[in-house]
Amino acid sequence: MQGQSQQQAYDRGITIFSPDGRLYQVEYAREAVKRGSASIGVRTSDGVVLLADKRISSPLLEGSSVEKLHKADDHIGIASAGHVADARQLIDYARRQAQINQLRYGEPISVETLTKAVTDNIQQYTQVGGARPFGVALIIGGVDDTGTPRLFETDPSGTPYEWKALAVGADRNDIEDHLKEHYDEEMDLDAGVDLALSALASVSEEGLRPDGLGLALVDAETDQYRELGEAEIREHLEAHDLLADEE
Amino acid sequence: MQGQSQQQAYDRGITIFSPDGRLYQVEYAREAVKRGSASIGVRTSDGVVLLADKRISSPLLEGSSVEKLHKADDHIGIASAGHVADARQLIDYARRQAQINQLRYGEPISVETLTKAVTDNIQQYTQVGGARPFGVALIIGGVDDTGTPRLFETDPSGTPYEWKALAVGADRNDIEDHLKEHYDEEMDLDAGVDLALSALASVSEEGLRPDGLGLALVDAETDQYRELGEAEIREHLEAHDLLADEE
Amino acid sequence: MQGQSQQQAYDRGITIFSPDGRLYQVEYAREAVKRGSASIGVRTSDGVVLLADKRISSPLLEGSSVEKLHKADDHIGIASAGHVADARQLIDYARRQAQINQLRYGEPISVETLTKAVTDNIQQYTQVGGARPFGVALIIGGVDDTGTPRLFETDPSGTPYEWKALAVGADRNDIEDHLKEHYDEEMDLDAGVDLALSALASVSEEGLRPDGLGLALVDAETDQYRELGEAEIREHLEAHDLLADEE
Amino acid sequence: MQGQSQQQAYDRGITIFSPDGRLYQVEYAREAVKRGSASIGVRTSDGVVLLADKRISSPLLEGSSVEKLHKADDHIGIASAGHVADARQLIDYARRQAQINQLRYGEPISVETLTKAVTDNIQQYTQVGGARPFGVALIIGGVDDTGTPRLFETDPSGTPYEWKALAVGADRNDIEDHLKEHYDEEMDLDAGVDLALSALASVSEEGLRPDGLGLALVDAETDQYRELGEAEIREHLEAHDLLADEE
Amino acid sequence: MQGQSQQQAYDRGITIFSPDGRLYQVEYAREAVKRGSASIGVRTSDGVVLLADKRISSPLLEGSSVEKLHKADDHIGIASAGHVADARQLIDYARRQAQINQLRYGEPISVETLTKAVTDNIQQYTQVGGARPFGVALIIGGVDDTGTPRLFETDPSGTPYEWKALAVGADRNDIEDHLKEHYDEEMDLDAGVDLALSALASVSEEGLRPDGLGLALVDAETDQYRELGEAEIREHLEAHDLLADEE
Amino acid sequence: MQGQSQQQAYDRGITIFSPDGRLYQVEYAREAVKRGSASIGVRTSDGVVLLADKRISSPLLEGSSVEKLHKADDHIGIASAGHVADARQLIDYARRQAQINQLRYGEPISVETLTKAVTDNIQQYTQVGGARPFGVALIIGGVDDTGTPRLFETDPSGTPYEWKALAVGADRNDIEDHLKEHYDEEMDLDAGVDLALSALASVSEEGLRPDGLGLALVDAETDQYRELGEAEIREHLEAHDLLADEE
Amino acid sequence: MQGQSQQQAYDRGITIFSPDGRLYQVEYAREAVKRGSASIGVRTSDGVVLLADKRISSPLLEGSSVEKLHKADDHIGIASAGHVADARQLIDYARRQAQINQLRYGEPISVETLTKAVTDNIQQYTQVGGARPFGVALIIGGVDDTGTPRLFETDPSGTPYEWKALAVGADRNDIEDHLKEHYDEEMDLDAGVDLALSALASVSEEGLRPDGLGLALVDAETDQYRELGEAEIREHLEAHDLLADEE
Repeated sequence: MQGQSQQQAYDRGITIFSPDGRLYQVEYAREAVKRGSASIGVRTSDGVVLLADKRISSPLLEGSSVEKLHKADDHIGIASAGHVADARQLIDYARRQAQINQLRYGEPISVETLTKAVTDNIQQYTQVGGARPFGVALIIGGVDDTGTPRLFETDPSGTPYEWKALAVGADRNDIEDHLKEHYDEEMDLDAGVDLALSALASVSEEGLRPDGLGLALVDAETDQYRELGEAEIREHLEAHDLLADEE
Repeated sequence: MQGQSQQQAYDRGITIFSPDGRLYQVEYAREAVKRGSASIGVRTSDGVVLLADKRISSPLLEGSSVEKLHKADDHIGIASAGHVADARQLIDYARRQAQINQLRYGEPISVETLTKAVTDNIQQYTQVGGARPFGVALIIGGVDDTGTPRLFETDPSGTPYEWKALAVGADRNDIEDHLKEHYDEEMDLDAGVDLALSALASVSEEGLRPDGLGLALVDAETDQYRELGEAEIREHLEAHDLLADEE
Repeated sequence: MQGQSQQQAYDRGITIFSPDGRLYQVEYAREAVKRGSASIGVRTSDGVVLLADKRISSPLLEGSSVEKLHKADDHIGIASAGHVADARQLIDYARRQAQINQLRYGEPISVETLTKAVTDNIQQYTQVGGARPFGVALIIGGVDDTGTPRLFETDPSGTPYEWKALAVGADRNDIEDHLKEHYDEEMDLDAGVDLALSALASVSEEGLRPDGLGLALVDAETDQYRELGEAEIREHLEAHDLLADEE
Repeated sequence: MQGQSQQQAYDRGITIFSPDGRLYQVEYAREAVKRGSASIGVRTSDGVVLLADKRISSPLLEGSSVEKLHKADDHIGIASAGHVADARQLIDYARRQAQINQLRYGEPISVETLTKAVTDNIQQYTQVGGARPFGVALIIGGVDDTGTPRLFETDPSGTPYEWKALAVGADRNDIEDHLKEHYDEEMDLDAGVDLALSALASVSEEGLRPDGLGLALVDAETDQYRELGEAEIREHLEAHDLLADEE
Repeated sequence: MQGQSQQQAYDRGITIFSPDGRLYQVEYAREAVKRGSASIGVRTSDGVVLLADKRISSPLLEGSSVEKLHKADDHIGIASAGHVADARQLIDYARRQAQINQLRYGEPISVETLTKAVTDNIQQYTQVGGARPFGVALIIGGVDDTGTPRLFETDPSGTPYEWKALAVGADRNDIEDHLKEHYDEEMDLDAGVDLALSALASVSEEGLRPDGLGLALVDAETDQYRELGEAEIREHLEAHDLLADEE
Repeated sequence: MQGQSQQQAYDRGITIFSPDGRLYQVEYAREAVKRGSASIGVRTSDGVVLLADKRISSPLLEGSSVEKLHKADDHIGIASAGHVADARQLIDYARRQAQINQLRYGEPISVETLTKAVTDNIQQYTQVGGARPFGVALIIGGVDDTGTPRLFETDPSGTPYEWKALAVGADRNDIEDHLKEHYDEEMDLDAGVDLALSALASVSEEGLRPDGLGLALVDAETDQYRELGEAEIREHLEAHDLLADEE
Repeated sequence: MQGQSQQQAYDRGITIFSPDGRLYQVEYAREAVKRGSASIGVRTSDGVVLLADKRISSPLLEGSSVEKLHKADDHIGIASAGHVADARQLIDYARRQAQINQLRYGEPISVETLTKAVTDNIQQYTQVGGARPFGVALIIGGVDDTGTPRLFETDPSGTPYEWKALAVGADRNDIEDHLKEHYDEEMDLDAGVDLALSALASVSEEGLRPDGLGLALVDAETDQYRELGEAEIREHLEAHDLLADEE
């Protein structure tokens, strides 16, 4: 109970340090990320894969409106986990940064530059008063103009990380265990899709449904972000026996 | 009691995260929505239906002044539930966005674009200090220039959702159970009106009264928002034996 | 007691939601309205009646200085209940809106447009920090240029309501019971005056005194706001035996 | 004790409503007024009388520096009770309003217009955050250009009242009882002076001293504010046997 | 103890009223004045005397740097008691006001005008949030261009008082008792100096030391502020046997 | 427990002094530094060495994205410990300062000037409200245009220190003990690299891995910041038997 | 304990008065000064001496980077005690003031003028909200253009004092006792240096080390600030047997 009331003391007003040097509001924002359904990113030798669990709660809800995958630029996609409305703000910010880069330098923004613009924006909300941190984590994946696939994470503290493969949101640790075990840097995009799906399936008791998933690729050859349709997703699921029983 | 005092700790000052990653002010704003009488939206193959329960408390009150249905643009209507005065602010904001879109791009705003402009505005009030969230949920329905009916929800967190059919406000869950059971994507506008009315009737013990309801359509053929008069509503109610005993 | 301390938690700082979705500062502002003496509005077939109980506390006080009736425009009057100084701010705001409308569009403002301008202003004080809500309710009555009498209420949340007849302030419920029982939509202005007076008398133990009342009409024929003198009020009171024993 | 801690809850930060609809900071400001020595205003058929009890605490203090009577314009005087430094701010505000009116409209400001400008200013300090209310009540008396004497009160809530005769500050109720009993609307200025002095004497155990009083008139004939000297005040006191024993 | 915790409730944030109408922050600022060593002012028939007790705590401290006497303009001096750094701000403000007056009107500022400019400035810090009151009292003395000596006090509430003779700071009451007993309005400057010294000596157990005192005159003949040197002060002390034993 | 609740009292709102003259928020920010993995700086006779422990938590994480070493200008490098997102802000600030210096004065910024620009920026966040301090310590090392190697530390209070060799972050004291024992001002860059590695190894139970380290030099001869590759680091580790057992 | 919790009540938010008229934040800032190592100033007949104890905590720390002595202008030096980062802000402020004075008036700023510019700046941080006071005391010493040595202190309240000799920081009282006993106004600079060193040695158990001291002079003849090197300091220490045993 002592611990609890101590925590409460750091929740009021602006984001400040606790005696042990932690920023509770940032840590609570991380909890908001964990409350969101998972998103997964996998970097392969010829592109990146973004997979999002949409966790559709009602058959009347249009799955396509559950915004977890976003095109940030022709060659960059973003998957999110956590507070949806916060994610929209960061996506908008990322898109504007991509446009500004194109206008200023006449070339597409690199994945790393975009990621750091976003994390710098996130950091401001953890240090300056009058606002709360963003309750969202992003996976930013794409292909640079040298054809190199890159895969980054932004967390609520505003720290950027580069990954070979990662998960954000619910069951992060379990999904990442699966990724660690099966990841192979030489895998191609197709294998990357299968790894992402099997990793998500490993934490889903009833298997996966195509309409409850979002799946996007940035192929190093085309340098284009592309979202897969339900049929394509179903093929992948069937091929690996990951399809849930429907009706 | 521990739980209660813990909650109180997150109510003061600006909207901040609780240790488990929730935004209490946003959740309390959702309670404000539940305190409001229900509104229902149904998307049909040839348009959208918006139905509002006006819960008229006195015979001296002019039912028409209970603002729950609003025309946002020629082709888009909005039904609300929750804090009425807050709804007015968002409706005004939506109307200005529709006008700006028309002026800038020379074409009507799409239902999705309008919805996301509104949710972005709502999100700001949940992150930046100095104001409280909006205590209102909106159903935004209309027909896009391709003739496609669209039906969205905005919630107090600023998250947009697209629905085939939904309810906001009091008895949301019971009404949605009725909608789920009887919804058919191929139904026409007339069937949509009947579904909306029967869904609302399923939670009203004494049946429905025409002067206590608001009912609006956006027909995909005409692309026009139209509110039905009391006589039309009465016909629908009589046809399905949903009319309350009057006087 | 638990309830009390819970309430207190929502009184500090800005106006925020309670766990059950209420805005306590707005509800307390409604209590401020109830502390004020009653005002009554009656809409008749040929105009609107505004009646205000001035509750004169001392024979040395000039009753005319107790501001409860206000001319907002030639064709619109306002009666208030609650915090007098707050009412003055809203009246001033309403008058400026009426002037602006006249200047911009070359025509008198409609009663509904004026009401909604006022309620939008009230709403701002319930959502944005740094100020408290207005502790006042207004009855805004007038005649539109089509000759239609209209009668609106603004409450401290910023919600507009249209009424056939209503009361705000002390004893609202008892007065409205009287109005409900005796209201007839076909009544003329004279009958409306009598209804308003008898409704107020129904909650006054010693009858009414002309110098303690304010009574104003907007006649649909003349389209003019007019306050009645003491002699006219006395005639009405005598005709219905509502006059208090004086001296 | 419950009541006390409840009150304290509403004292912090800005002026907000209590659960029963009161503004405690405004009520406490009224207490600040009661802590000040009394001022009295009397309206007669040919002018207004302003009397102030200066409560001189030391023979070394210059009574003339105890500012309780102020000339606001040639034809308007103001007496105050309560927080002296706050009164100075309002007097300055009133004087600027009088000058602005003269410049803009080429005519002296009316007593009522001046009063309402002052009360609107006072109200702002009770609603908008970042400041406390004014701890002062004013009696504003003067003669309009039609020669009509007017006498107003401004209270800490920002409400204007018009009076025939009134007191503000310490012993207000007892002084007003005396005024009620002896006031006669037909009395001339001289009788008004005597009434004001006898009313104040009724609450002073040792009688009144000329150097401890401020006495000002606005004569309807001259339309001029004039402060009486000690000799004139002494004459009045002697004539009515109200003079305190000196030395 | 109840009283103590009640007081604490009014100390936080901005200066607000207590339930009994007091401004605690202003009252605490008065305590800051009492913590300062005394300053004394005496108005004589031919000028004013300002005396300050410098309370030198160490022989290594330069007495001349203990700022308690200040020249505000050629013809006006100021003695202070309380928070030294706050006094400097008010003195600077006074000097600027004196210069502005000279520039604007081509004539020296009157003592009263200067005093009221300073008190208005002080009042702002007691009403508007974001700052604390000034913890200092000033004695402002000088000679007007008619040759009239004037002597004012400014207190932390921003109230101006005019005095024949006064003390501020430590032992105020005891010193004023001495002044009341011995003051004579006809005394000349020399007698005024002696009165001030003897009043201060009446509360000093070991007598007075010239290097621990500041003594300034504004002579009505020269209209010039002048600070006395240690030798002059010693002469006065010796003449009246007020000199402390040195070494 | 007394101590604990006392500390909590100083955590709220802005950074303020505790009764014993400490700034708790700054001290808590120092704890945030200690929570970060160590960085080490060594100044040698012919350049400076910067070493960072990257503490890679997962094989899927790209070690290169763990930002602990930064090039601030051609001739200056920065190593950080603590809150990564905060470090990025300070690095950006440092880079802008370096560019501004080049533009304004046409010459590279000196290491000391750059350090003090950064510490002045840090100090502002500890004194002015509305933000929290930076939770990061920096080691700023480089070579001035006279060829002199310089090595500075910035701490969360904004104090600059110059060192011969130092560590920041986890295990600071133990690492500095090692440095003290083995440091020799005459050592060359190679010996400096070895000292830094052996100091870090002294607190690592399982030895060091090249991919978990960042190592940068500023050579006084070339005047250029250069990060070493994994192979170079491995050589150093092997030469001194500091390499961890891999796979 | 009562006392403790009472103190805590005045620590929150801005700097405000306690019931006994104290400014706790300023008093706590004085504690921050006491936590710093001592600085000493001595005024002699031909210049001023500034001595700073650098309290070097590690042999790896460059003593020259411990900033306790600063050149403010050619003829003025400043020694500080307390929060180092705060001191830097005030030194920067002092330097800018010196430059502005030179630019505006074409002559060097006087020591007194510079001191008062600094104290006025300090005072602002104790009265206006949104920042904390400076946790530092300065000794400002120099020679005016008349050749007069001057020596001032600024404390955290913003009060300026002039001294013959003084200490700030740790052991102030003991050092000042030594100074009082041995100070002689006729001493020359050399004797002043010896007095300062012996005063500091009187509170150091193990004697003094040249590399742990900062020593600066402003010679009235040259009018130049000059810091002494280690060799010069060592000579003084040896001459008076104050040298600590080294290695």
